[in-house]
Amino acid sequence: MALTPARTPPGVLELLPLDQIAFQDMLDTIRRNFERFGFLPVETPVFELTDILLTKEGGETERQVYFVQSTGGLEKGGTPELALRFDLTVPLARYVAEHEHDLNFPFRRYQMQRVYRGERAQRGRFREFYQCDIDVIGKDSLSVRYDAELPAVIYNVFRDLKIGPFTIQLNNRKLMRGFFENLGVADGEAQTLVLREVDKLDKRGADYVRDTLTGEAFGLSADVVRKILDFVAIRSTSHADALAHLAALGQGGDTFNQGVAELREVLELIRAFGVPEAFYALNLSIARGLDYYTGTVYETHLVEHPQIGSICSGGRYENLAGHYTKSHLPGVGISIGATRLYWQLREAGLIGTGTSTVDVIVTQMDEAELPRYLAIANELRAAGIATEVVLEPGKLARQFKYADRAGIRFALVLGSDEIARDAVQVKDLRRQEQFEVPRAELVKTLRVELEQAAAMAAR
Amino acid sequence: MALTPARTPPGVLELLPLDQIAFQDMLDTIRRNFERFGFLPVETPVFELTDILLTKEGGETERQVYFVQSTGGLEKGGTPELALRFDLTVPLARYVAEHEHDLNFPFRRYQMQRVYRGERAQRGRFREFYQCDIDVIGKDSLSVRYDAELPAVIYNVFRDLKIGPFTIQLNNRKLMRGFFENLGVADGEAQTLVLREVDKLDKRGADYVRDTLTGEAFGLSADVVRKILDFVAIRSTSHADALAHLAALGQGGDTFNQGVAELREVLELIRAFGVPEAFYALNLSIARGLDYYTGTVYETHLVEHPQIGSICSGGRYENLAGHYTKSHLPGVGISIGATRLYWQLREAGLIGTGTSTVDVIVTQMDEAELPRYLAIANELRAAGIATEVVLEPGKLARQFKYADRAGIRFALVLGSDEIARDAVQVKDLRRQEQFEVPRAELVKTLRVELEQAAAMAAR
Repeated sequence: MALTPARTPPGVLELLPLDQIAFQDMLDTIRRNFERFGFLPVETPVFELTDILLTKEGGETERQVYFVQSTGGLEKGGTPELALRFDLTVPLARYVAEHEHDLNFPFRRYQMQRVYRGERAQRGRFREFYQCDIDVIGKDSLSVRYDAELPAVIYNVFRDLKIGPFTIQLNNRKLMRGFFENLGVADGEAQTLVLREVDKLDKRGADYVRDTLTGEAFGLSADVVRKILDFVAIRSTSHADALAHLAALGQGGDTFNQGVAELREVLELIRAFGVPEAFYALNLSIARGLDYYTGTVYETHLVEHPQIGSICSGGRYENLAGHYTKSHLPGVGISIGATRLYWQLREAGLIGTGTSTVDVIVTQMDEAELPRYLAIANELRAAGIATEVVLEPGKLARQFKYADRAGIRFALVLGSDEIARDAVQVKDLRRQEQFEVPRAELVKTLRVELEQAAAMAAR
Repeated sequence: MALTPARTPPGVLELLPLDQIAFQDMLDTIRRNFERFGFLPVETPVFELTDILLTKEGGETERQVYFVQSTGGLEKGGTPELALRFDLTVPLARYVAEHEHDLNFPFRRYQMQRVYRGERAQRGRFREFYQCDIDVIGKDSLSVRYDAELPAVIYNVFRDLKIGPFTIQLNNRKLMRGFFENLGVADGEAQTLVLREVDKLDKRGADYVRDTLTGEAFGLSADVVRKILDFVAIRSTSHADALAHLAALGQGGDTFNQGVAELREVLELIRAFGVPEAFYALNLSIARGLDYYTGTVYETHLVEHPQIGSICSGGRYENLAGHYTKSHLPGVGISIGATRLYWQLREAGLIGTGTSTVDVIVTQMDEAELPRYLAIANELRAAGIATEVVLEPGKLARQFKYADRAGIRFALVLGSDEIARDAVQVKDLRRQEQFEVPRAELVKTLRVELEQAAAMAAR
């Protein structure tokens, strides 16, 4: 038979088991923190009806959509009925609108699933990737206080991920809009265009942005552009510094003042939520690409790895599900692109191969003693210790080699001598040490060893 | 703006948060047991290249496949490059063939992901559903002992799921094949066809099967058909009874004898793996629809809910990845269709709505005390207690109602009186009781309450 070469489609990240364990650890840490803050799990189908997913006309998003159809649908032709979700926000909007009367508001949900985009295949760009989102959705209204809760969740997640210092950067779209109105850029459309240019500051530099904004397309005066660039250059270095920057902005129109007041309240509450001041800052350049956000906006950056860009972003939006329901559903949310984050952390050497989920392997020194080995494994498993038993006979050295390659740390050896003494040899394959414990103390001893190993790994 | 009605595509199971929690608990229990037995996690992309997925020509499977293409691909026409996986076995075969040199054999993997089938939409049939699979893959050979390990995993999983008594039913395809050879049905193709009819016993009854097998299409003698029906009627009632049934089968050809020997070894080892004898039995009618299995086959049935059918099935196969690699990779595996299982258990009243993942809600009696409430929440979260804080001001009664509807059991109340006394009111919304604890003992008290609640729920 002719062989079909085994290969994954381009643009996906498929992991070997020990890497999968490391990735799973990351997801577990994220999930644990989402749950600690009282967010509830939601999962939605991988596909949505096409008319639901593509309510917005045209645009970049639509071109990147993957359509789904069964063999029958394929034969019939026409627009496919289904398409893969490209984010978790549209499914959330559909979910909340569909189940509105069964949900409690403010509705606090987390969702950790894969999304799909028909991106051009290139290194570090994924067509399938995990997003880990939390959102709080209000009915009719939602206090700005929730805007301060999400940075507290972000802080807890990334602290627990142990990937070095990071800064949650804050801005407010009302502040920005009001600022532009003060400068005479009153039209919303024009503001959006200016903000889009300002968004390019990091990538293209100040000169490019200055030239563009004073150029024909925008026609702003040099003075106005200078004010804009001074404004977006504002970064705070401490909590007090952030408040001082806000005070120095002075008064403006209603929108401007409201933006300042919201930012101030959010900053004060972030501190009350227990986030140390080294971990949050004002950054008045943050606009977020989407026109979607209307208030607080967030980005999160690793201090020592700025090239990675924002590892967690989001913000406040005015109305979640206007396409599907007449209810007014304001919300605030953040998203962690876990697949890209994992890949980048691994590239940067910040994340290694995981420790095996298998704690202990029971070797097979004497085939006739297999029932004894199985009984030991039963006991360990009942004590919560993940245990593999070697079921194929073979040389001990080969069994150790298998265990070592598989990343299993502890191997148990029971030959006739140990059995006569009612003892077990424990071989620590990482330290290349071996010690004997009485059979009755095996579970206790292994628990201590595993707790120590976990504590070492957590440092 | 015209609204698009919010709705999920037909054939999917989307859950409200408390049901999602119950489902997630089920998946966590399955995963915990898979890991305790030393299986390693693998995830594969939701789609595979079409030529990989559809190596087999035609057939029912292909008609049920969902094809995937981006907007560009749709415009180009032709056979789509990608298709959604319809099980986890083909992706496993592709994975093992692709990463063969990076894996350790025997390769023990678990995978818990959704699969997709373009089924006709009907109640209880899903187009998207979770499968939870474990497989052990050997290189060149794999001891039959692994065939006994999988029932031990099944036993642990369903014991922990607490869904009532169940029986893991065992048969062996070699035994069946050998039995048919003894009866003169020597041709493999003919055996497969007879087995397919035998597989209909439960659904169509003995008369139908007898008529079919003595009828024109098969032309078997009444005596042969009687022997077949006697054979497939064999069920054991205890470990000793199972061995007695095997002994009573006597000798046959090599294949037959090998099947008997394998079943005997598997039965003995299942016991050594600690599975109580009430939970496993011989059932010589089990053939499993697939022609894929070559040795041990399993089904698992709920004793009190036979109408649900097999909740966990699988078996031994000769070669996993013959389409993709020349390596000979025998294996043994089982699969739990978690979505269908959850749905059926819920229909049968065996599974309820989950307890909220939120343990405690901190109410907002006095808006000015919000920083104090946040500090308490911080302390609880640091102690691993999932805590929500009411951030919107509002009447206490409304806050309790929200908590109760959301399934949150404990609400904390701190007004000026409690603050003056340095105490906290704990309201148990389930029992409608309220008690006061000193502020310093809050974490300890809640931990005890939550542990008691969990212990009650586990009964």
